[in-house]
Amino acid sequence: MTKRTKKVTLYDTTLRDGTQAEDISLSVEDKVRIARALDELGIHYVEGGWPGSNPRDIEFFKAMSKEKLRTARLASFGSTRRPRTRPSVDANIRALLKSGTPAVTIFGKSWKLHVKKAIRVSLEENLEMIYDSVKYLKKRVDTVFYDAEHFFDGYREDPVYALKTLSAAEEAGADCLVLCDTNGGTLPFELARVVSEVLGRVKTPLGIHAHNDSETAVANTLAAVREGVRHVHGTINGFGERCGNANLCSIIPALKLKMGLDCLGTRQMRKLRETARFVYELSNLPHSKHQPYVGESAFAHKAGIHVSAVVKSPETYEHIRPELVGNHQRVLVSDLSGRSNILYKAREYGIDLESDSKVVRSVLRKLKNLEHQGFQYEGAEGSFELLVEEALGKREKCFKLLGFRVIDERKEEGKAPYSEATIMLEVNDVVEHTAAEGNGPVNALDKALRKALERFYPSLKEVELIDFKVRVLAGAKGTASRVRVLVESGDSTDKWGTVGVSENVIEASWQALVDSLEYKLYKDKKRGASPRG
Amino acid sequence: MTKRTKKVTLYDTTLRDGTQAEDISLSVEDKVRIARALDELGIHYVEGGWPGSNPRDIEFFKAMSKEKLRTARLASFGSTRRPRTRPSVDANIRALLKSGTPAVTIFGKSWKLHVKKAIRVSLEENLEMIYDSVKYLKKRVDTVFYDAEHFFDGYREDPVYALKTLSAAEEAGADCLVLCDTNGGTLPFELARVVSEVLGRVKTPLGIHAHNDSETAVANTLAAVREGVRHVHGTINGFGERCGNANLCSIIPALKLKMGLDCLGTRQMRKLRETARFVYELSNLPHSKHQPYVGESAFAHKAGIHVSAVVKSPETYEHIRPELVGNHQRVLVSDLSGRSNILYKAREYGIDLESDSKVVRSVLRKLKNLEHQGFQYEGAEGSFELLVEEALGKREKCFKLLGFRVIDERKEEGKAPYSEATIMLEVNDVVEHTAAEGNGPVNALDKALRKALERFYPSLKEVELIDFKVRVLAGAKGTASRVRVLVESGDSTDKWGTVGVSENVIEASWQALVDSLEYKLYKDKKRGASPRG
Repeated sequence: MTKRTKKVTLYDTTLRDGTQAEDISLSVEDKVRIARALDELGIHYVEGGWPGSNPRDIEFFKAMSKEKLRTARLASFGSTRRPRTRPSVDANIRALLKSGTPAVTIFGKSWKLHVKKAIRVSLEENLEMIYDSVKYLKKRVDTVFYDAEHFFDGYREDPVYALKTLSAAEEAGADCLVLCDTNGGTLPFELARVVSEVLGRVKTPLGIHAHNDSETAVANTLAAVREGVRHVHGTINGFGERCGNANLCSIIPALKLKMGLDCLGTRQMRKLRETARFVYELSNLPHSKHQPYVGESAFAHKAGIHVSAVVKSPETYEHIRPELVGNHQRVLVSDLSGRSNILYKAREYGIDLESDSKVVRSVLRKLKNLEHQGFQYEGAEGSFELLVEEALGKREKCFKLLGFRVIDERKEEGKAPYSEATIMLEVNDVVEHTAAEGNGPVNALDKALRKALERFYPSLKEVELIDFKVRVLAGAKGTASRVRVLVESGDSTDKWGTVGVSENVIEASWQALVDSLEYKLYKDKKRGASPRG
Repeated sequence: MTKRTKKVTLYDTTLRDGTQAEDISLSVEDKVRIARALDELGIHYVEGGWPGSNPRDIEFFKAMSKEKLRTARLASFGSTRRPRTRPSVDANIRALLKSGTPAVTIFGKSWKLHVKKAIRVSLEENLEMIYDSVKYLKKRVDTVFYDAEHFFDGYREDPVYALKTLSAAEEAGADCLVLCDTNGGTLPFELARVVSEVLGRVKTPLGIHAHNDSETAVANTLAAVREGVRHVHGTINGFGERCGNANLCSIIPALKLKMGLDCLGTRQMRKLRETARFVYELSNLPHSKHQPYVGESAFAHKAGIHVSAVVKSPETYEHIRPELVGNHQRVLVSDLSGRSNILYKAREYGIDLESDSKVVRSVLRKLKNLEHQGFQYEGAEGSFELLVEEALGKREKCFKLLGFRVIDERKEEGKAPYSEATIMLEVNDVVEHTAAEGNGPVNALDKALRKALERFYPSLKEVELIDFKVRVLAGAKGTASRVRVLVESGDSTDKWGTVGVSENVIEASWQALVDSLEYKLYKDKKRGASPRG
């Protein structure tokens, strides 16, 4: 046997198989942002969508044609040609070509049950459909991946026929034959046996695509790699239909740190946690606390026996160094860990706190209190920086509010409601009273506030509201629920997030909006003092 | 080699290791109820707690002494004796005996690193601590399990010493030697190799205790069983410290349905989903939708191509029959759907569409168009059902809106804003004009709308707003962004979701609120017509 390469290719399908999860729906803009993040992480192939089945995905590929990616190559996904149709006139195949991606992935049937019951063609015609489609695409596209759908179920029923479907794709010139455990029902030892048998029968490189229905998708993927597979499908956070796909956030560190294989650079792997959290945010899903490697609890230790050991030597209760995947050790409800957190963050913002421990304690106390109320500073570092400034006694208020009123009115059925805000505020003893209309109350209030302030602070004209997220925080039963608003703003050079929490969404939005504008002024001032910011 | 038994013993540690999870805290009463549920499920051993470390657990064992269990035997958990202490005077060992359980599990150190750095005794004394403790307990308790903490890490560092620790427990009469992957860092192939080596060296039966830090706890457990281990530790839903323990909800069906082993009765296994949900409820945690076997999405199908196949024969996209674990098939509606999803759904609602394909096409067209605008019907089946009614020309409007106005006002800095809504509407030529205040504009509008309608439709008083989610849908840059509002409502018998989308959050909320109330009336009417609903 030849010595196998140590290099594993990562193929991400968050934007296609991931969006087949029940609770995930991404806009075109979300998908573009995730594609950029995957590229920065160092993923080799990004499967962007299924243009033949979904109009949104056609838009996505159009939008991506203007993007420059560093590492990643885009792939579009679709099925083999329909029965009794030439590839050149098959709508799905035409959509694949039209997407203009350097790689195309098409899936075909390996399982006789599916050939007979789902697509209802003869076994022979199924082989032709695979052959024709791969052949036609391979002449027109750089890289053609073949997904052997239900390969393991098919092999269980009839290994000879399952292998024939692979041979059809191989003969037509496919660059890689991806064995799919589509229903996720195969256990690792069975999967490893099948992979090793197939490796002896084909020359084309193999890939693995696992689903998590048996809670063994990560183990199945690693088992295939151990047998010699070097092309790995998965999604960020294991998003995917039913129980999800193989989770790249767990596969990548296992390959690199435990199996001695090469897939990402060491610096890239430190972005793993950040990427995982970014994808949760854009999907508007809560982060999974207990997620291996990247979860908030993955390296969290409760007080007592574990903590004292872990402080002496981390390897006593940690299977890897958390920093390698961008995570960190947490000691729960511990003043010590909290303090070092603040110091760490303050250092990040260029504020030297080390010498002044009174401020640190005051920030920590305030922070714990605010977090208990539902504030969260992970997406709102603008608000956090202002909090530190306040503790240092340096925060400057840029105006005094005298009052506001927002009216949403709808005069008749079918007509869109009309929102108007009036505001009165004071800057250096000068009173400004103005009004604005908007798409809804928060937008109107935002516009009125800026309009009032721009006279005094012209630089606020540059601020753009990029994103606005509202989450209801479930309280104890019976009490009213609180709302958290996260606002993302930007100007020509930076982006920053701010946060507000209240039982009233207008109040929570107001807090976040005011922080956003004050942060802009604070940032400009800081930059004025030191040109590098 | 002798033929191994097909019988696997299940040892549940939800009440001990499970409660070491960051977000789980169970009262004594919760623990008693969970112990009963585990007994009904057919679990063989229930580890109830650590009486030496936790006063609540002492209370639990006292409470359990009055309970009659059918299948399960209780176990208490604790460490080996302290250094330089006789077992008879060791507080922890006394607490174990005092708990009065028929089984006791004690853990000891297998890893030299821990012996030296954590408990700081000589390697020899560590062996004596294990031997003494097991010996002392075995004379006084029916069954003594020995947990070899960090066994796999210890074996990696020094297999000879790790095996000596097992021999110490074996010689002292332990009934089972449980190999623990305490840090969860071992991958299945390495674990299988170690287990098979150990099996050749000891005569006492082995057990396996796996953690999920590498996302392979289930695979690790199954790998150990495949090597011959017949005593399996785990928790319901995989609860446990950091990333959790091996998940019994995934292990049990794999053992029984995929590996042909015996652990629970067929009727007992049908309680798996119910037990999983019960444990989530008592822990006050949301159910994990995508959880294998027992999750709400585990047998949910979204892509149109999947649905058309699954309707023809379920095994095409389902690895087991969901009923075997008390779950069921679900079909989702989204812009990935095809005609079969719509038909399936309509049938679920008792609407016969098969004969009228024009309606199906019209719903499908409308659906794809609405989803493209940002509507999402996965969490909003109430709105979807109304959409089908509309396509059938059967939807009845329950009122005519004449107008509404919402005012949010803040009179001075620091004071919470005040929200008030007024509304005028007409039902059967009777005009109602009223007002309400609330926590923010949507809450005020919701209250005013119900207040106006309750006069005409008293049953609306039963409707409760359970959850309210807002998400901003990023549009192309420069255009205004749209907002999606998802509302979950309920009455004494049902829960339903509705959705609204608009550039104005008030309008989007209005759509979802109106759908919610109309759905309640529609549902009551349907139930009136057919008593089975």
